[in-house]
Amino acid sequence: MGAEVTTRTGEPVLMKGNEAIAQGAIDAGCRAFFGYPITPQNQIPDYMSLHMPEVGGVFVQAESEVSAINMVYGASAAGARAMTASSSPGIALKQEGISYIAGAELPAVIVNVARGGSGLGNIAPAQSGYFMSVKGGGHGDYRTLVLGPWSVQELYDFMFDAFDLADRYRTPVVLLADAVLGQMMEPMRFDREPVDPAALPPKPWTTTGAKGRKRNIVNSLYIVAEDLEAVSRRIQARLDEAHKEVRWEGHQLEDAEVAFVAYGTAARVCLTAMEIARSQGIRAGLLRPITLYPFPSEAVAELAGRVRALLVVEMSLGQMVEDVRLAVNGRVPVELHGRTGGVVPTPREVYEALAGVQEVAGR
Amino acid sequence: MGAEVTTRTGEPVLMKGNEAIAQGAIDAGCRAFFGYPITPQNQIPDYMSLHMPEVGGVFVQAESEVSAINMVYGASAAGARAMTASSSPGIALKQEGISYIAGAELPAVIVNVARGGSGLGNIAPAQSGYFMSVKGGGHGDYRTLVLGPWSVQELYDFMFDAFDLADRYRTPVVLLADAVLGQMMEPMRFDREPVDPAALPPKPWTTTGAKGRKRNIVNSLYIVAEDLEAVSRRIQARLDEAHKEVRWEGHQLEDAEVAFVAYGTAARVCLTAMEIARSQGIRAGLLRPITLYPFPSEAVAELAGRVRALLVVEMSLGQMVEDVRLAVNGRVPVELHGRTGGVVPTPREVYEALAGVQEVAGR
Amino acid sequence: MGAEVTTRTGEPVLMKGNEAIAQGAIDAGCRAFFGYPITPQNQIPDYMSLHMPEVGGVFVQAESEVSAINMVYGASAAGARAMTASSSPGIALKQEGISYIAGAELPAVIVNVARGGSGLGNIAPAQSGYFMSVKGGGHGDYRTLVLGPWSVQELYDFMFDAFDLADRYRTPVVLLADAVLGQMMEPMRFDREPVDPAALPPKPWTTTGAKGRKRNIVNSLYIVAEDLEAVSRRIQARLDEAHKEVRWEGHQLEDAEVAFVAYGTAARVCLTAMEIARSQGIRAGLLRPITLYPFPSEAVAELAGRVRALLVVEMSLGQMVEDVRLAVNGRVPVELHGRTGGVVPTPREVYEALAGVQEVAGR
Amino acid sequence: MGAEVTTRTGEPVLMKGNEAIAQGAIDAGCRAFFGYPITPQNQIPDYMSLHMPEVGGVFVQAESEVSAINMVYGASAAGARAMTASSSPGIALKQEGISYIAGAELPAVIVNVARGGSGLGNIAPAQSGYFMSVKGGGHGDYRTLVLGPWSVQELYDFMFDAFDLADRYRTPVVLLADAVLGQMMEPMRFDREPVDPAALPPKPWTTTGAKGRKRNIVNSLYIVAEDLEAVSRRIQARLDEAHKEVRWEGHQLEDAEVAFVAYGTAARVCLTAMEIARSQGIRAGLLRPITLYPFPSEAVAELAGRVRALLVVEMSLGQMVEDVRLAVNGRVPVELHGRTGGVVPTPREVYEALAGVQEVAGR
Repeated sequence: MGAEVTTRTGEPVLMKGNEAIAQGAIDAGCRAFFGYPITPQNQIPDYMSLHMPEVGGVFVQAESEVSAINMVYGASAAGARAMTASSSPGIALKQEGISYIAGAELPAVIVNVARGGSGLGNIAPAQSGYFMSVKGGGHGDYRTLVLGPWSVQELYDFMFDAFDLADRYRTPVVLLADAVLGQMMEPMRFDREPVDPAALPPKPWTTTGAKGRKRNIVNSLYIVAEDLEAVSRRIQARLDEAHKEVRWEGHQLEDAEVAFVAYGTAARVCLTAMEIARSQGIRAGLLRPITLYPFPSEAVAELAGRVRALLVVEMSLGQMVEDVRLAVNGRVPVELHGRTGGVVPTPREVYEALAGVQEVAGR
Repeated sequence: MGAEVTTRTGEPVLMKGNEAIAQGAIDAGCRAFFGYPITPQNQIPDYMSLHMPEVGGVFVQAESEVSAINMVYGASAAGARAMTASSSPGIALKQEGISYIAGAELPAVIVNVARGGSGLGNIAPAQSGYFMSVKGGGHGDYRTLVLGPWSVQELYDFMFDAFDLADRYRTPVVLLADAVLGQMMEPMRFDREPVDPAALPPKPWTTTGAKGRKRNIVNSLYIVAEDLEAVSRRIQARLDEAHKEVRWEGHQLEDAEVAFVAYGTAARVCLTAMEIARSQGIRAGLLRPITLYPFPSEAVAELAGRVRALLVVEMSLGQMVEDVRLAVNGRVPVELHGRTGGVVPTPREVYEALAGVQEVAGR
Repeated sequence: MGAEVTTRTGEPVLMKGNEAIAQGAIDAGCRAFFGYPITPQNQIPDYMSLHMPEVGGVFVQAESEVSAINMVYGASAAGARAMTASSSPGIALKQEGISYIAGAELPAVIVNVARGGSGLGNIAPAQSGYFMSVKGGGHGDYRTLVLGPWSVQELYDFMFDAFDLADRYRTPVVLLADAVLGQMMEPMRFDREPVDPAALPPKPWTTTGAKGRKRNIVNSLYIVAEDLEAVSRRIQARLDEAHKEVRWEGHQLEDAEVAFVAYGTAARVCLTAMEIARSQGIRAGLLRPITLYPFPSEAVAELAGRVRALLVVEMSLGQMVEDVRLAVNGRVPVELHGRTGGVVPTPREVYEALAGVQEVAGR
Repeated sequence: MGAEVTTRTGEPVLMKGNEAIAQGAIDAGCRAFFGYPITPQNQIPDYMSLHMPEVGGVFVQAESEVSAINMVYGASAAGARAMTASSSPGIALKQEGISYIAGAELPAVIVNVARGGSGLGNIAPAQSGYFMSVKGGGHGDYRTLVLGPWSVQELYDFMFDAFDLADRYRTPVVLLADAVLGQMMEPMRFDREPVDPAALPPKPWTTTGAKGRKRNIVNSLYIVAEDLEAVSRRIQARLDEAHKEVRWEGHQLEDAEVAFVAYGTAARVCLTAMEIARSQGIRAGLLRPITLYPFPSEAVAELAGRVRALLVVEMSLGQMVEDVRLAVNGRVPVELHGRTGGVVPTPREVYEALAGVQEVAGR
């Protein structure tokens, strides 16, 4: 696969989601990948093990997920664009490490090709990792920026955004995908200019480690409570500033009387369901959050002001719905259609759920 | 300490919070403790290592936090009342294991004597582990029941409740304390009858492991998505049923025009601040959630119907405030006074924050 | 199995080797077992997990072999008769821990139900762990006492000896078995009186850990080289004293003109081969070392003074043969018949090897 | 340091032993280093972390010693010249991994900058890791080739030999140094031509991992005992062939009536002691084994035929002395002067020991 990919003709290429993530990372200047195997994301380390050496990058299969995320910590402290990838249980194991990276004010990219849980669960797609991505699944007040792609093209493109956001706000960034996105093949274009890591802006805070150069220390230890509070507020201020990066996409919201709110794979299902609804005379729309943190609360609130109800569709028992309700703050009913455990809802069932919401709200 | 403790005269005893937790666990029938050292909870494993053998229980200092939580998993599968204790970073490391226990529908008790974060942070008290306790910090749709004690007496008493709830709903239960509660000494009474583990109701689902007995398998693997969904819904149904266990406490809410919502150490501060406010002519009250999951949403909503504003006080940059806002759903303003990084707010500053809220809301 | 075992009628019982080891340990007063699964020794932890709780003992399946041996270290420092069991690769992982236990002058019992190697190898019987048991497979000048049983009865009996030797000489003791011995069933008698751990001689060096009692520290750190040398010599002096514990067994050595030297399973094969040889007019004998460290060098040297040659038979490419040659010191030829990788030599091939040696030596 | 090193003027450079090892490895074509910190070898990973990236190589600080050696396994299977370095306890932890590499018939270089033991011991120099290097400290019948340098120049030069031997015989090679050699500074020359890894002979057995290329599997699993035996004999045959690589060095052996046998740091001491002895009229010599496995048995045996006694000097309680005795096979007395725990014997004490041996042997 690698060779063809490098011929950037601008023509559409058929590519698997996980490979698009990996190539996207390399093109975005990532030169340090640390992973540990878990289905359904194994094509990412496979691809990295093959192609990282070609660009002088480092691929390490670590002893464990805990080890992998701490290697990301180290590589990032040394200035590299560094990442790890895993799936739900593996991401849970990385929570402490992510908190350390956040507390040390370091950039990093963490890819979650989510699968069904809790526990061992299965290897089918799921969105039940929303909470642990968006609320900060580890300890402390940190959050991570979270991107929710819905296509192979976005898997590729968002790797550029993820590394840029990470560097800009010195924060871990989570790319929250799922098994459908990771395993599907779609035509896509390599239409972004590869990043030369050497040409990136300098990071004056990195550990240079060498004689004669300025000595930096990267740490997350602050014995005095007031010091730690100051750092936590500085980190939060950066995250607040990152709210200007909020992204979402509207589909036929102009005349909508009722609207879906969904991200990722669930949003793809909703788009089809929306068309069914329109064909049935229901003026449905779709608001797709792209950044899950920062969440497009203003857009949701604005939309709530002009529809009769919102239907949140999630491949979970209800996680993003809380952020939608917080944004709506009681203005209109916010209903949930949730499937879990690896079940992807069908457009038909989602349409029917919408029709039910519309009927109740329409009275 | 141990010997005196066993003389249950009903007289108040001066006891350290962490020791009250440990003795509470033993009295509640816990016979399997697995830990790994971390400040500020080290008195718990210390106490356990000394006193568990006296009751024929098992104390193991594991190789790591990951190992400890998986030993809890194993001991619980075998039918024991099993627990672990740690502090914030250690709890983050346990998230995958907690998700496995939840997915395997097993009881377990996890104590978090929380400290400042993110990352290494410090060893001062914090409430920034609310999200990872209440939203399910690991992967999947599980939640854990969460108790938020505010006194040494409650640290002891709630261990009984934690083990009972865990068994009744076959779920992990988190006792969410902090460094203040763990380290403080307060008079308390051992006024609950010690539990004889042999007299507890049988658990027909345990792995008996022996010839001639029914063979059970404990697992969280469900290859077929619909099967996993069914299990996830069954687990959620138990959690929904557990909403009847919701507990909270009101202080002078009858005539309140403005009220604090706070738990644990922050609630202690608010109680004093409330008295200051009352002395200044502000009719302040305090609603203290005791169960953090299930959250006392109905009580908060009811209160929101008769006050002008709520002030959430947290030792974090704002986590429980989301659950309060979800409950209030726009009825009245919900403000936040949050300190983080190990800083405990003073009654004075909290009173002033309330006065500000009251002034704005009173217009 | 457990129940029958406790009826000590003195009648022969048919028992599997691994179970005899486990019951022997329990009867010898072992109350702390730490293991990690590996074939062909899994019946040991199985048995322990079932029966340890019956005697108030502790069974822990650790996170890894490294973790298990360090738990043995801890339990032994606290005064318990503690053990671990594994098979060849697992024992290799424990080498550092064994060196620590030796350096800390602690008793411990390590059972190796050896299998074919190097590497993953297979699960067939092997004696290629002789070197790493007898020469001290870890770092430093320590040795471990090593027992080489050859029957199920000895597997049981030697557990008493192992724990006694360990306590007497404050040293790790290795029971070196193999997959044949571990898996075979043989009649045996429980004719040793179970040890009450509470009735064992006090160990004044244990870490008592409690207020008001003498404070001991167990460690193997000696910054000053001369101090460490003194400790190493003290440890070696104990091992030298343990040379009085040397044990071996002779079979028809009185009139032997040529003799086998073999231990464990290989010695069983040699015993049959010896009978074949005798039936063919060759006056063969067998010297079976029982303690492998201390090695019965004097007995071998004495024997070398009155036979024409020795044939060492090992299920390895030649390890014990070095100790035999060191003992013989050039007096007579010492030949090797070695099979490896899990192959157990047949009596016929061993007889033929002996016949060849006899022919050459007889010239 | 790095920059100057690359100017290969042929002029003597003053270099620290550990750095000479690291630069030697890089010059020998090593492009994959996996380590974990331990004194007194930390300059090796330090140097590697700095200079490996300059040549496109990989430096990883792993989660543990166990992890590091298994990364060497992986990198070597993929065709890289790979190494790890540690000190005594760390090498003990690597024993299982070394056995796996040996069983998988892979090249690898393991550096042991040995320190005092057993256990934690101290950070002073020691030779008590001879057994675990030379006898195969892990499980199975494997051995490793072992080189025993005695100068900074040899530390550098032998890295070339180590990697060449490893590749030629598809076996792990141990460079057995100690804290004196690792920490000392000596003038040395970079007089060997750096190896271009791309110009090395192809390794047709590597895992290429890519479509369209031959698929190799690297493993050490052989379920059938006879298969494993065949592999073990094949490995041993290679080691037997490697006996032609035996190296040793004689000092004034031509007219010696008594001789030291010593390697590494101990040999340096003996060289001085030899001069003292000569000045006192004792015709002393020194035989310094350079390859410790294969051991120069023929040279030692030949020497034993013409001296009255041998004195083995070791910084241990006696390990190499066994190989000397096996070689001498009773011809002349072989005495030991051993110091341990980090003590380096003085030339004077060693001379006196020799004088005593000479006196007894001379009678």
